Amino acid sequence: MAAHQYDVIVIGGGSTGENVADRAVKGGLSVVLVEAERVGGECSYWACIPSKALLRPLQALADARAVAGARAATTGTLDVAAILARRDAFAAHWDDTGQAAWLEEHRIELVRGHGRLAGERRVAVTDKNGARTELIARHAVAVCTGSHAAIPPIPGLAEAHTWTSREATSAEHAPRRLAILGGGAVGCEMATAWSQLGSEALTIIQRGPRLIPGYEPFAGDALREAFERRAVTVLTGTTARSVERDRDGAVRLSLQSGRTIIADEVLVAAGREPRTDDLGLETVGLKTGSWLEVDDSMRVPAVPGGWLYAAGDVNHRTLLTHMGKYQARVCGDTIAARATGRLENGGSVPWTPYTATADHCAVPQVIFTEPEVAAVGLTEEQARARGMAVRAVDYDIGCVSGAALYADGYTGRARIVVDEARGVIVGMTMVGPAVGELIHAATIAVVGEVPASRL
Amino acid sequence: MAAHQYDVIVIGGGSTGENVADRAVKGGLSVVLVEAERVGGECSYWACIPSKALLRPLQALADARAVAGARAATTGTLDVAAILARRDAFAAHWDDTGQAAWLEEHRIELVRGHGRLAGERRVAVTDKNGARTELIARHAVAVCTGSHAAIPPIPGLAEAHTWTSREATSAEHAPRRLAILGGGAVGCEMATAWSQLGSEALTIIQRGPRLIPGYEPFAGDALREAFERRAVTVLTGTTARSVERDRDGAVRLSLQSGRTIIADEVLVAAGREPRTDDLGLETVGLKTGSWLEVDDSMRVPAVPGGWLYAAGDVNHRTLLTHMGKYQARVCGDTIAARATGRLENGGSVPWTPYTATADHCAVPQVIFTEPEVAAVGLTEEQARARGMAVRAVDYDIGCVSGAALYADGYTGRARIVVDEARGVIVGMTMVGPAVGELIHAATIAVVGEVPASRL
Repeated sequence: MAAHQYDVIVIGGGSTGENVADRAVKGGLSVVLVEAERVGGECSYWACIPSKALLRPLQALADARAVAGARAATTGTLDVAAILARRDAFAAHWDDTGQAAWLEEHRIELVRGHGRLAGERRVAVTDKNGARTELIARHAVAVCTGSHAAIPPIPGLAEAHTWTSREATSAEHAPRRLAILGGGAVGCEMATAWSQLGSEALTIIQRGPRLIPGYEPFAGDALREAFERRAVTVLTGTTARSVERDRDGAVRLSLQSGRTIIADEVLVAAGREPRTDDLGLETVGLKTGSWLEVDDSMRVPAVPGGWLYAAGDVNHRTLLTHMGKYQARVCGDTIAARATGRLENGGSVPWTPYTATADHCAVPQVIFTEPEVAAVGLTEEQARARGMAVRAVDYDIGCVSGAALYADGYTGRARIVVDEARGVIVGMTMVGPAVGELIHAATIAVVGEVPASRL
Repeated sequence: MAAHQYDVIVIGGGSTGENVADRAVKGGLSVVLVEAERVGGECSYWACIPSKALLRPLQALADARAVAGARAATTGTLDVAAILARRDAFAAHWDDTGQAAWLEEHRIELVRGHGRLAGERRVAVTDKNGARTELIARHAVAVCTGSHAAIPPIPGLAEAHTWTSREATSAEHAPRRLAILGGGAVGCEMATAWSQLGSEALTIIQRGPRLIPGYEPFAGDALREAFERRAVTVLTGTTARSVERDRDGAVRLSLQSGRTIIADEVLVAAGREPRTDDLGLETVGLKTGSWLEVDDSMRVPAVPGGWLYAAGDVNHRTLLTHMGKYQARVCGDTIAARATGRLENGGSVPWTPYTATADHCAVPQVIFTEPEVAAVGLTEEQARARGMAVRAVDYDIGCVSGAALYADGYTGRARIVVDEARGVIVGMTMVGPAVGELIHAATIAVVGEVPASRL
């Protein structure tokens, strides 16, 4: 069977792969995209979109209930069925017809099946019936396969048919008792959602000392306090020693602390692993199951010839959809520029279209909990660890009259981290209702290195 | 009677005057503040604060009703009495005890009464009993008297006991029929409020061809459409020829178009006039009732000796509370720096604490209507009028999935004005639910002159 030739092969049709392909096509190249599941990927069906669709109605109602006068109109109860139906619509009922049509409109060829690298610039695709297609790339192969939930090596966990972020965002009803292993962003957002959508007993089990590690400590403390006020149990400094699903369907988690938690479902939200365990990495000299290390143009330097790229979660730079799209634009533009000789094979220059500079300095993140957490740049601890002489300035957001107007009894807090030597803001973290809306401003200040005096 | 001496006299204790005084005290000077009405001024009692207090519950409820699932919980009706009571609380029940205490804490002396200039560095204060106090400033007098509603010379209007922004923000109940003369920000915000707080028949009468002149035309068009959808009548290209209040209390407005509007109250929202009509300007060679023209350090150059300053609305640079506070910081710091010899009497340098540079380039403004309007920098037309070669880029905000998640059927529009020569954004206007939250980001991009490529 003859191999099909394209300028570029993209493996993985999530938002990152779609954008790499789109940019490469716009750069004048022929592109084939290989997708094993649904075009649109994790974000569209099992992450950002359905998650925000679950959370937005809760937030909107909470906002109305926070203001006297509006509160009086909120005498009814949430329509959980309507929220789930709205979520289903945003997830396109898990049907990727629309996204496949988008590919066609953008002149990106779609090959459905599982793509595996098969040596230099070659990809072998196996479709669901076992039929194989051989693809050859004239210029580049871009791996955009993303990540999947990591399942920690806890005895019984893998066999207990637990939830991951996929089931947590697509479930059709709330488990009465839900245990969440992991108190990061995913765990906290899903606790926020399901505690209001019907779960009566909800427990977050966090191995570390605090929720949302990697953020300023006061943010994790504020979330814990808010969860506990809403009768969500937060257990820190412990994890499951063993897990077992009983015959009646209940899951028993024996914790290191000695406590036992019984739940109807367990959400495992304990980090991500690269989706590279069946990708043929060994055929190009890489290690199966590893993250793919890239340079700032998204190229994998470990592979000779400079033809292999990796963008999005799979390169482990920042596991966030919007940053994957950003890397995708850099990756697709770079491939096109190199293929057409517009870009030398060499060094990339910060802040040009061919360099993902922003990865290094200012990644805005919002956790859609109640209260929200929004952060950009470095925490105080991270900045000090990089040797910066920083000053942390804390604000009580509730003291600002705009906050009190927004919601009665508004409480919120912000920390700005200032690099004293350069007089610029290198990081900001905010906790409080609707702070996610403010992070764009902070991001531009950090990215733009706008002097603190001008702000 | 001996005159009392201070380093600085501030006339007018609104937010601008308070901030001038505070900065001057922090700079080591003695300061007296003269206030004829309430310390805190227009913003605290009859503008921003009560206005936003009226509007926020309406917005919060509208947001909840815009999302399926949350909408189901909003079966009740607004509690108008609770909204008005909340507004009263935010306006401190029109009692300035708290603000007067703030002055004392900040070592600012308060003299209650009407202050009038009485020659060079002299101010005469007449209290409500007619008693006079003479004040002498060693260094500077800062006029921060603000503005009041302009009453257009329409026959009968002045005699008809109409509302201005003061009555519109502090009214205790909704007039059944409300006519609004003027379709700028104040008129549109108050129409948004009272149409939902009980007014059954609401008419906006706008002399120009479009609501909110000075903004991008699409913004005014979007507001008009939204008002008409909610049965608010919008009449453009006309104004009242005469106004008369009947014996039964109803007001009859005869329009130039020939139409007659009968209303229970008329809100005159047709611009502002300087509060300088009884300020003794003639004693220092200025014209009574005029705006006070200032340089970038807030000094009035027309008055010899360099001792007279004017900050806030009264200098007519930008009639917005937050810009008044910004000018106040510049003004107070400059007075202190000049008094202590830290600053030469001469030229000010852009973006230093002694120069109100931001006035010229990027004033963020939000109109809290439904939909909201947010703008910063220049409109396309304004930029062209300044001779810039600009490109306007329009976006349909409703196409962004975040917008659809925010509210079902979200519609919104944004225009970015790019100066092609310099590659920077010089203006942005947005219309849609919650766009006010996004304007901070746009402002920092415009102020920071962050290159469009980096964004």
